[in-house]
Amino acid sequence: VLDTIAAGDQVLLTLEDGKTFLLVMEPGRHHSTHRGSIDHDAVIGQLWGAALTLSTGKEVYLLRPRWIDRMMKVHRRTNIMYPKDVAYLLAALDVGPGKTVIEIGCGSGAMTQALTRAVSPGGRVFSYDKREEFLELNARNCAAARIDCSLVTYAVREAGETLQEGADAVFCDVPEPWAELGVIEAALAGSGRFAAGIPTFNQAERLASALVGHGFAMVETLEILVRGILARPGRTRPEHRMIGHTQLLTTAVKVMRSPRGAE
Amino acid sequence: VLDTIAAGDQVLLTLEDGKTFLLVMEPGRHHSTHRGSIDHDAVIGQLWGAALTLSTGKEVYLLRPRWIDRMMKVHRRTNIMYPKDVAYLLAALDVGPGKTVIEIGCGSGAMTQALTRAVSPGGRVFSYDKREEFLELNARNCAAARIDCSLVTYAVREAGETLQEGADAVFCDVPEPWAELGVIEAALAGSGRFAAGIPTFNQAERLASALVGHGFAMVETLEILVRGILARPGRTRPEHRMIGHTQLLTTAVKVMRSPRGAE
Amino acid sequence: VLDTIAAGDQVLLTLEDGKTFLLVMEPGRHHSTHRGSIDHDAVIGQLWGAALTLSTGKEVYLLRPRWIDRMMKVHRRTNIMYPKDVAYLLAALDVGPGKTVIEIGCGSGAMTQALTRAVSPGGRVFSYDKREEFLELNARNCAAARIDCSLVTYAVREAGETLQEGADAVFCDVPEPWAELGVIEAALAGSGRFAAGIPTFNQAERLASALVGHGFAMVETLEILVRGILARPGRTRPEHRMIGHTQLLTTAVKVMRSPRGAE
Amino acid sequence: VLDTIAAGDQVLLTLEDGKTFLLVMEPGRHHSTHRGSIDHDAVIGQLWGAALTLSTGKEVYLLRPRWIDRMMKVHRRTNIMYPKDVAYLLAALDVGPGKTVIEIGCGSGAMTQALTRAVSPGGRVFSYDKREEFLELNARNCAAARIDCSLVTYAVREAGETLQEGADAVFCDVPEPWAELGVIEAALAGSGRFAAGIPTFNQAERLASALVGHGFAMVETLEILVRGILARPGRTRPEHRMIGHTQLLTTAVKVMRSPRGAE
Repeated sequence: VLDTIAAGDQVLLTLEDGKTFLLVMEPGRHHSTHRGSIDHDAVIGQLWGAALTLSTGKEVYLLRPRWIDRMMKVHRRTNIMYPKDVAYLLAALDVGPGKTVIEIGCGSGAMTQALTRAVSPGGRVFSYDKREEFLELNARNCAAARIDCSLVTYAVREAGETLQEGADAVFCDVPEPWAELGVIEAALAGSGRFAAGIPTFNQAERLASALVGHGFAMVETLEILVRGILARPGRTRPEHRMIGHTQLLTTAVKVMRSPRGAE
Repeated sequence: VLDTIAAGDQVLLTLEDGKTFLLVMEPGRHHSTHRGSIDHDAVIGQLWGAALTLSTGKEVYLLRPRWIDRMMKVHRRTNIMYPKDVAYLLAALDVGPGKTVIEIGCGSGAMTQALTRAVSPGGRVFSYDKREEFLELNARNCAAARIDCSLVTYAVREAGETLQEGADAVFCDVPEPWAELGVIEAALAGSGRFAAGIPTFNQAERLASALVGHGFAMVETLEILVRGILARPGRTRPEHRMIGHTQLLTTAVKVMRSPRGAE
Repeated sequence: VLDTIAAGDQVLLTLEDGKTFLLVMEPGRHHSTHRGSIDHDAVIGQLWGAALTLSTGKEVYLLRPRWIDRMMKVHRRTNIMYPKDVAYLLAALDVGPGKTVIEIGCGSGAMTQALTRAVSPGGRVFSYDKREEFLELNARNCAAARIDCSLVTYAVREAGETLQEGADAVFCDVPEPWAELGVIEAALAGSGRFAAGIPTFNQAERLASALVGHGFAMVETLEILVRGILARPGRTRPEHRMIGHTQLLTTAVKVMRSPRGAE
Repeated sequence: VLDTIAAGDQVLLTLEDGKTFLLVMEPGRHHSTHRGSIDHDAVIGQLWGAALTLSTGKEVYLLRPRWIDRMMKVHRRTNIMYPKDVAYLLAALDVGPGKTVIEIGCGSGAMTQALTRAVSPGGRVFSYDKREEFLELNARNCAAARIDCSLVTYAVREAGETLQEGADAVFCDVPEPWAELGVIEAALAGSGRFAAGIPTFNQAERLASALVGHGFAMVETLEILVRGILARPGRTRPEHRMIGHTQLLTTAVKVMRSPRGAE
């Protein structure tokens, strides 16, 4: 039995030049691109992975969207989150099935989707933002990305207000993450992991100092650079342009210095 | 109820200088480090995340091992796999619960562990290597890393021999990945993702050409650089040393140019 | 006595946004920019370094052109040469006053200008190209850049033809530099330095092998990346974009394995 | 007439592994290396560029020292200056024959040598340091590097004290360059160039703000990364290690906002 695309499926239409469109297939609709028009009816019933030839002679590929494709297509009102950074953060935070994760400053939902997918099945994501309209946008975006939204608990919250207790990991995407460390420390389980994404060295410096001050251990700051390589017969070279900066990533772990309490 | 460390638990003992030891706690044993000796009996019964003071006055943190910590502690006879690269590959290959993934050249098992953890629950990993002793080392390492080995199927296999059909993703870690593309194409489902890690530009060039020749789409090559930042009050700067090269990552997707088969 | 701008002087008009115009001041002329018009007559008689306010309220700075400013303004029909690469090459080739330098593939003259300035006074530059129209463009550009053209000897030359003997350094900017190594070795004095700028890893590999084969020593390949930093109060970060690739630089030194000849 | 090495010449003895020794040839002396001993008498009379075979079968190359070789061999009590940074600074500052250049914080003399060589003939370098012993070390190092020391004027000077007037360029290598901007502005001619090398982002930020505050224009901060490439037949790749940080470079130009004075 071969696996074909049905009406209602979300398809990543991908042109040869790498341009992509993430669309739900609806009978009778079509989508116009700079390489020609694509009829949804011509897509429905095709095999996943099929290459169709457009009227311009160019190909369009009918791809299953990956979670990073969906994440990059979020309707954004906040900063873009890049796969290079998100993938690293998921690993550094050890987010996995069954885990409880807190997200402070959930914005448009790119990271919410990544975290929710990663804690499935059995986990929980607590997503906080001080702007109610972002929580609503976030929920709409998660539904559109076909994430299991029942795992996400949204809450409007001002800086410094308490968080869900017993979290395995906290990701913080706010301009002043240091102001949250007291409640983050209270919310994190022992050995729980903290991470933040921040744009400037000033924030990294202030955050690192505050983490040390709150007793966190293994405080590290780094940046991830991706360099594209044009690998072509006899003419392989780096790409002329690259992204020079997205964000700095700060990570730490919660430790407890008098673990036995009243002893 | 607070969560304490029991005999038989695997603990990541972490010194202040970042040096780590991944050990199973056994009553009566101790572990010597350059910062002093650690008694397993003093660890058992402590809270996860506790900081103990050693005889030298230095601290040791009792951390839950993350999967990247376990991966980095693999007993290796092959190249090291870095979290920066593995995390990106998992995202690019869209490895997730329930997926079927093939690994060609599974070596000591760092990637096997990452893939198996990522397809849990409900997924499968087919791990091939031409060297039987590596499959055995791999299985031992996966058991030590407390991975659900029942999800992994190991097989001795020479280059070019057929692979499990219907895979969602293939990761290839052999010196001549281009020689495997025919059977990889046959094994991958439509829209399935391919990735390889390779050390040289020559391999990247030959692999990219071969991928195009086999009809794969979205063939991309990149490298990931991690730059450490020393974030300290009033003296923030990049670290003096960095890793200049681990491997090049090549990714592609399987597409089918006559999608309707017998039509 | 203060130093003022006279008619006939070449001025680097620099707008606040970094946009620059390299112009010879001629009474009665004016230059239109996106920030307003600049009258040459308003510039003539000003001090070097003066900041004038344009009709838009924006400033224009009247700067002395540096050699790298002139180099970047060359009328180009060939690849751009960046200061980061040229500055490094001048140092690696040890180009200085009185030296004799050969340039193979002199193109539009960016490097010719840099070399000629560096060997002044007392040195010589021999600039070869197989395309006569480039030699002419090169000479015009050097004159416009106010380089002492009497130090430059131009010659039309096909690949592999002999070069001026006794050179202290050779810079090679052709697609197949390996084809020139025999005549380069003959032209270079002992301990003379070789450098080439090439865009691809394939060329770097072939050139490095050929250099070793011809007996050159200290064969090295590298690339230079410049990363811009936005240093602003409380918000310092790397720039979002950077140039990912210009060229690879290969350097070597001529050594002689039977130094006493007929002995 | 071939050019041979004489007693008293400074030779860069270079082993195959890239290790170098900068030595003055003295009859009767020898130099021990990990690859075997080198007799000065066996070097004297050889051609420049000769390759001698040592007792271990390894080669040693008899190279003319370049200025960057001499600079890297300075007897240091201060931070190392790398050719990548120095070469760029010379270009950015437009240092050339006949120019007057100021150096604040001249330390062991690596930059003094580079500047002095670059202003020859006809130029002047004014080198200031608050530590008299560094001025003496600097002078000894410049003499050893065979720089024309008559072009250098040394002076002991505390931060903020006046500088030689009419300079074309100022290079500042002190921990608090912002404290010098008032006197630097007074010393620099209009359109004169300023540069500083500093290790931290904090210094870069404070310096950039201070430069803007003092009316300097074109204030830029950048860092230069050099990546080594191992170019070998069929196995070309970046080097595993690279230097992640040396210093940040800040550049600016002096402009004058009421250029006509009493007008």
